[in-house]
Amino acid sequence: MASRRFFDRLRRRGLRGASRRPALDLAPGLPERDASRLREVITDLLVLHDTMTQRVEAAAVADAYIALSDDGRRNLLLMLARDFWTDPAIVDDAVDALKHGDDRRGAERRLRRALTPPADRLLRLFTGLEGGVKFLVDLRADLLLVANGDAGLGDLERELKAQLATMFDIGLLTLRRITWEAPAALLEKLISYEAVHAISSWDDLKNRLDSDRRCYAFFHPAMPNEPLIFVEIALTIGVATELPPLLDTRAAELDLERADTAVFYSISNCQPGLAGVNLGTALVKQVVEALRLDLPQLRRFVTLSPIPGFRAWVEHALAAEGAGLRTQERELLPAGPARVLARLSDREWDVDEAIRPALLALCARYLTTAVEGRAADPVANFHLANGATVERVNWMADPSPTGRARSFGVMANYLYEPDRIPDRAEAYVTRGEVPTSSEVRDLIAQ
Amino acid sequence: MASRRFFDRLRRRGLRGASRRPALDLAPGLPERDASRLREVITDLLVLHDTMTQRVEAAAVADAYIALSDDGRRNLLLMLARDFWTDPAIVDDAVDALKHGDDRRGAERRLRRALTPPADRLLRLFTGLEGGVKFLVDLRADLLLVANGDAGLGDLERELKAQLATMFDIGLLTLRRITWEAPAALLEKLISYEAVHAISSWDDLKNRLDSDRRCYAFFHPAMPNEPLIFVEIALTIGVATELPPLLDTRAAELDLERADTAVFYSISNCQPGLAGVNLGTALVKQVVEALRLDLPQLRRFVTLSPIPGFRAWVEHALAAEGAGLRTQERELLPAGPARVLARLSDREWDVDEAIRPALLALCARYLTTAVEGRAADPVANFHLANGATVERVNWMADPSPTGRARSFGVMANYLYEPDRIPDRAEAYVTRGEVPTSSEVRDLIAQ
Amino acid sequence: MASRRFFDRLRRRGLRGASRRPALDLAPGLPERDASRLREVITDLLVLHDTMTQRVEAAAVADAYIALSDDGRRNLLLMLARDFWTDPAIVDDAVDALKHGDDRRGAERRLRRALTPPADRLLRLFTGLEGGVKFLVDLRADLLLVANGDAGLGDLERELKAQLATMFDIGLLTLRRITWEAPAALLEKLISYEAVHAISSWDDLKNRLDSDRRCYAFFHPAMPNEPLIFVEIALTIGVATELPPLLDTRAAELDLERADTAVFYSISNCQPGLAGVNLGTALVKQVVEALRLDLPQLRRFVTLSPIPGFRAWVEHALAAEGAGLRTQERELLPAGPARVLARLSDREWDVDEAIRPALLALCARYLTTAVEGRAADPVANFHLANGATVERVNWMADPSPTGRARSFGVMANYLYEPDRIPDRAEAYVTRGEVPTSSEVRDLIAQ
Amino acid sequence: MASRRFFDRLRRRGLRGASRRPALDLAPGLPERDASRLREVITDLLVLHDTMTQRVEAAAVADAYIALSDDGRRNLLLMLARDFWTDPAIVDDAVDALKHGDDRRGAERRLRRALTPPADRLLRLFTGLEGGVKFLVDLRADLLLVANGDAGLGDLERELKAQLATMFDIGLLTLRRITWEAPAALLEKLISYEAVHAISSWDDLKNRLDSDRRCYAFFHPAMPNEPLIFVEIALTIGVATELPPLLDTRAAELDLERADTAVFYSISNCQPGLAGVNLGTALVKQVVEALRLDLPQLRRFVTLSPIPGFRAWVEHALAAEGAGLRTQERELLPAGPARVLARLSDREWDVDEAIRPALLALCARYLTTAVEGRAADPVANFHLANGATVERVNWMADPSPTGRARSFGVMANYLYEPDRIPDRAEAYVTRGEVPTSSEVRDLIAQ
Repeated sequence: MASRRFFDRLRRRGLRGASRRPALDLAPGLPERDASRLREVITDLLVLHDTMTQRVEAAAVADAYIALSDDGRRNLLLMLARDFWTDPAIVDDAVDALKHGDDRRGAERRLRRALTPPADRLLRLFTGLEGGVKFLVDLRADLLLVANGDAGLGDLERELKAQLATMFDIGLLTLRRITWEAPAALLEKLISYEAVHAISSWDDLKNRLDSDRRCYAFFHPAMPNEPLIFVEIALTIGVATELPPLLDTRAAELDLERADTAVFYSISNCQPGLAGVNLGTALVKQVVEALRLDLPQLRRFVTLSPIPGFRAWVEHALAAEGAGLRTQERELLPAGPARVLARLSDREWDVDEAIRPALLALCARYLTTAVEGRAADPVANFHLANGATVERVNWMADPSPTGRARSFGVMANYLYEPDRIPDRAEAYVTRGEVPTSSEVRDLIAQ
Repeated sequence: MASRRFFDRLRRRGLRGASRRPALDLAPGLPERDASRLREVITDLLVLHDTMTQRVEAAAVADAYIALSDDGRRNLLLMLARDFWTDPAIVDDAVDALKHGDDRRGAERRLRRALTPPADRLLRLFTGLEGGVKFLVDLRADLLLVANGDAGLGDLERELKAQLATMFDIGLLTLRRITWEAPAALLEKLISYEAVHAISSWDDLKNRLDSDRRCYAFFHPAMPNEPLIFVEIALTIGVATELPPLLDTRAAELDLERADTAVFYSISNCQPGLAGVNLGTALVKQVVEALRLDLPQLRRFVTLSPIPGFRAWVEHALAAEGAGLRTQERELLPAGPARVLARLSDREWDVDEAIRPALLALCARYLTTAVEGRAADPVANFHLANGATVERVNWMADPSPTGRARSFGVMANYLYEPDRIPDRAEAYVTRGEVPTSSEVRDLIAQ
Repeated sequence: MASRRFFDRLRRRGLRGASRRPALDLAPGLPERDASRLREVITDLLVLHDTMTQRVEAAAVADAYIALSDDGRRNLLLMLARDFWTDPAIVDDAVDALKHGDDRRGAERRLRRALTPPADRLLRLFTGLEGGVKFLVDLRADLLLVANGDAGLGDLERELKAQLATMFDIGLLTLRRITWEAPAALLEKLISYEAVHAISSWDDLKNRLDSDRRCYAFFHPAMPNEPLIFVEIALTIGVATELPPLLDTRAAELDLERADTAVFYSISNCQPGLAGVNLGTALVKQVVEALRLDLPQLRRFVTLSPIPGFRAWVEHALAAEGAGLRTQERELLPAGPARVLARLSDREWDVDEAIRPALLALCARYLTTAVEGRAADPVANFHLANGATVERVNWMADPSPTGRARSFGVMANYLYEPDRIPDRAEAYVTRGEVPTSSEVRDLIAQ
Repeated sequence: MASRRFFDRLRRRGLRGASRRPALDLAPGLPERDASRLREVITDLLVLHDTMTQRVEAAAVADAYIALSDDGRRNLLLMLARDFWTDPAIVDDAVDALKHGDDRRGAERRLRRALTPPADRLLRLFTGLEGGVKFLVDLRADLLLVANGDAGLGDLERELKAQLATMFDIGLLTLRRITWEAPAALLEKLISYEAVHAISSWDDLKNRLDSDRRCYAFFHPAMPNEPLIFVEIALTIGVATELPPLLDTRAAELDLERADTAVFYSISNCQPGLAGVNLGTALVKQVVEALRLDLPQLRRFVTLSPIPGFRAWVEHALAAEGAGLRTQERELLPAGPARVLARLSDREWDVDEAIRPALLALCARYLTTAVEGRAADPVANFHLANGATVERVNWMADPSPTGRARSFGVMANYLYEPDRIPDRAEAYVTRGEVPTSSEVRDLIAQ
């Protein structure tokens, strides 16, 4: 959570009126005495008419929040969810007016207003502070951590998510290419946010920004130095089916004119507070379009993606003598389920040649089976919902410990065919149809 | 209303998926046959899952709107207000669930959702289009023109206003100084938007951007070349009490180090679609702070303001033998009300010396009398609500035909004292207290 | 000449050391007493070791120059040319050393140094001042005005020209496109610098920057807001053969995708101090390349050019019974030379139908005849030396009074064929070969 | 040396004319056959009239140079120095014309031209290529490496240095502050160019760019991403007398409002090709002024500088029984010269307490003794010529192996007093006067 003080910054920027606002000085845990003082401050500021003063008061509340301990923050959030929520009496009155009054339109309007909690207005006030948008994003990250099943906190979190979803509408974001010419302060964030294949050093990062690479991120105008989500791409000849060559810092750079394929090998969300606000879909599509314009020689847009749920799924399916397997799946195994499970738990399971076709075939099934309209694997589901095809599954494509732990080292290529994206996305989302390449279909048919 | 086509631009930017979307091709007046086709398009797009396709469809609707005639636009807006509004049956069900269900929180949430019209979601989709924010602003300008008492259009306009108020939160805007170094395309807009004292030529504009002048405007990041509101300021020695020297293109520039006063002599809103979204208050205050930082030698921040309602108020008060005058006001007159009214209607009313003190005293009263907590004059009300003082009324300060027609050439200075702005604003807005200088009090006490 | 004071600006920027340097305070005409004081200041500063102080002293000299009257400036320049020029005794010594010494290389070096006037070092010092590059450009403009045959001033002017030619090497300049988005302060300069077809108003300028127009200029990094030379281009369907449609502010804009021709209709130098430093050639070629990249649909690059010397040439040739005409030219006339001359001097000469073919044929000859390797017309010579072809001569293409006065309203199209530019330029410059279209050849052959 | 090809880049940028120029394809060592072909190319291009073609040919020569081996490059440079140098016959003719002709001014001009070698024109042509300025800088770095006493190469190197000195005039450079927000590609160069105290990692670099640090560099507009020279500064309370705290990446950042001193602790030249072109003096002075404006609370500007020549000087002075010591210096020793020398050569010389005062006093003498108007230590000479004072010598200020090897770990503070810089610089440079603090004087007087 940002440590800067809003109040101070407003004061430093010369708002003399603001300078008379002393800090709230609350005990870190927000004991009831301080909580009730804070409750009063918030109540008062919500009815102020001078918006500049209102803003200064809101800044003081934000500053106070930042200075609190984890417990204190939870207490403050609970206060918002309880004491600045809808008033049942007012709601019920508005409901009655709707039922019995003449002016239906007016009554609906008033009822909707009654159903909008005062906390909503406080949150909107934060938006207006310098750095306030980032504050709201971080506030939601806090809420997701501490909500912990509390219904009130859950409502507050949803309220905030709705506001953030509006604020972070794709149309308000800018797509920027990130190169080695970008500010170090920004690149440093890529290093810390990379979630799929950790960036181990500045040299590693530089390699990922070479002339035969691309990196794009979305930014919000109110957080110009904070990437929201970014994607890393390698330009290659043919579809890349292994990760290590892409991460090899000593590999020679490809002459761009020879590249025919863009391989999306990592997509990372940077803001936990934006969880559930889907930016990845638009990122992938806009980047595909940007690449098509910039490098017309590209013929294919594929991913080289992890399969995070595969190993857990296999182990679960094999357990209890393969109770979780369907008949055709069971037939793929080179031995009985218990035996296969035992072999896989060996550290050197990959020396067993017979296991390879079985795992690849199981993986093809795992990726392409939609239950209740969704693929079980979250990454598969993301790309299918975006309109991609399951193109290939690749043996030992990520031999790192993480890769083995996630998916026995198997990785998938998803293919994006620009012209067919909308139809495929619609077919998958509405009817659970999973498009697959003939190669993957062959694996399944085995 | 902007004439560019959203759809075309999306297509030009390379969205191949988009290229298969043919234009909607509606008859300009939107006859019922076309309306029902459009209704279907909107209904369908609201349930689409592929957000990129959804965006393309929304762009087609926006394009179609732009191509319609005034009548066609009104028809489309009426359709939104009627066919994409709340569904009474669903609302009533949600009300019942609230009354009789157990999960109060969940029921309130569902009810609120039921009270949010589908049109709201369509409007939010427009936000995400390139140029979409400006489209929404212009759409509201249209709505204000055509609503004309229609309850549905009124609701739609209010819905859109609420969205715009969130989108144009002060904290999301940037304050920029505008100089003669600004793009001509931007300066051209100042010329066309100036609402208080028309800019007659590029020379006139250049004079207003001289080294002893300042001009500031608010901008929205999604409309970077569109000023939202701007203020023009002259830096002077002492308070300026007349307009002509400020607009004299041949006047010598003042050595800035000698300036002690900033005179705000014009504030113009640029976007009719943002009517009612108060940007002026924050503009004045942020500009005062910016000037204090930039030019610490400034001692006073005043306006030289028009008094748009004064002449109408005087003429109305004098009518019917002065029926609208209070006793003290009547005593200020140099003759009977009817006689004074007659004199004022003469083209050369200003040669009558006796009329001057009467008009100034009446003006002081006009500006400082709050009825139901508001000054009658809109400009006075604006500055008082911002925390200013009525400082001076100036005889023949604007001798132009417009100035005479508005207020017999009288103009007012309002004084902003940075340290006292919040208290004064609160006192005026909540209790109708109008702060005045001793000079103005003397005029009133006559 | 710029009126800003270098010294003041250095002081304002906080060079405390500088603040102790009082202004030189010379009488405007620089009488001998002041001249000798200034001579001493310059002599002293040229031997200073602290470069910062040297810079401050040089700034004081530049300030003093700016404050002088025209006479005073000439006196100062004469002083530089006389008292800060080479020393014959030192030169002769160095010559003797060269003749009689052993170290030929060293002797040449020393002789060259002896031949470099001290004034040269002072001029280089000016370069280093803020705004110094512009000062040097303006200084040369002064020199060109006042030299007036004085050999010393001529040498000084040549010295400065050589320095400027190095400083304004094409490789150090940047080509920028100028649009209606450019700063008004910059556009204002286009209005005042346009030398071929005067820009009459901001509307006129805006028309020349429409979407179917292009305007490019060269800039020097040390004078970022001063265009050095600019070209105006219209994008058209087919070759434009008349000026008025191009300058018509009400003409509709062309859909760029239909344009196949770029018409260069005006090139203006902006800095008199850069006279003789050829920037036009590189401007034309770089702009052709920029347009080819930006608008691959363009098939032709032509000019629509004035023929500034044509009328004077015709009148001179016709005088004395056509003494200046060659036989074939005489045969083109519809009547005897004296008669034709008389007709042409009539205000309504253009109603005479018979005159048209004669003038066009004469014009074709005028443009294509190289005497001592050069075309007589300066604009023709410019484009031919750049590698263009004489493509067309157009009747009444510029019917404005200026156009009639320059060339009976006739204008020429020169054609640039990118692939053939280098060879044609070389052939013209070295062998006086003038490439012409078959159409122009037909005119000549008449 | 940059590896990019000029010719390719010109071609890529669309100069079709250029595309017909095949690469020169010379053998890497430039054997005579290839050399004579190249000689012809250069001879031809120097007389070309079409400057665009001339540029393309010059680019081909530059490309050829880059592709050569070290030997080949030396051969090419020798060719320039020999075959494109002044022609003695022409020089002698011009000398005769000067001696015997009437037009002295004209004759001097012609003689100077005769003394300007054709190689000079070729070098100027390189300037105009994209990346050409950097090419010239690198070319001089090559020349300095390979000249090796050859008179011709020495002349060529001097010629190029003179051109670079004009091109890199301080007035044409820009001073930029470098922060952690700078492009990684730029920061990477700081890491590789830091010459005084090596930057060991990105963390080390980030520490040097913290909020209580400053880093400034000069840039040339034609090499915008190449720092020419940079200085690193720590803002401190009081004068820093030790290096390790400044380089400690874990040290807390200082609240800037408490800082009263700017400590310049590292100045590094980045371009070997600019050796002898003094940029450091202007850098120090402009940075002092920039800091005074930015942080008016600063009271002192000092360096914490290495003393690179001290250890060598001491060891040389002590050798041969202290033959190099003056009497007062000998008296400072705690033992006989040979004995002291022996002790100092021990790895643990610093445990000997008695050695400390002796070394400090010797160091004070070393730094403040000007022989023939120059201090022996190059860093001392640099700061003294810039107008600084020898303020302090600090025991074990740089305990790193490098620090011990350079100067027994001793470092010096030089003090810059802005008001006295010019006088002190002049006094030192012209009269060898070394200003010292009373503290240093006390050390000397011991």
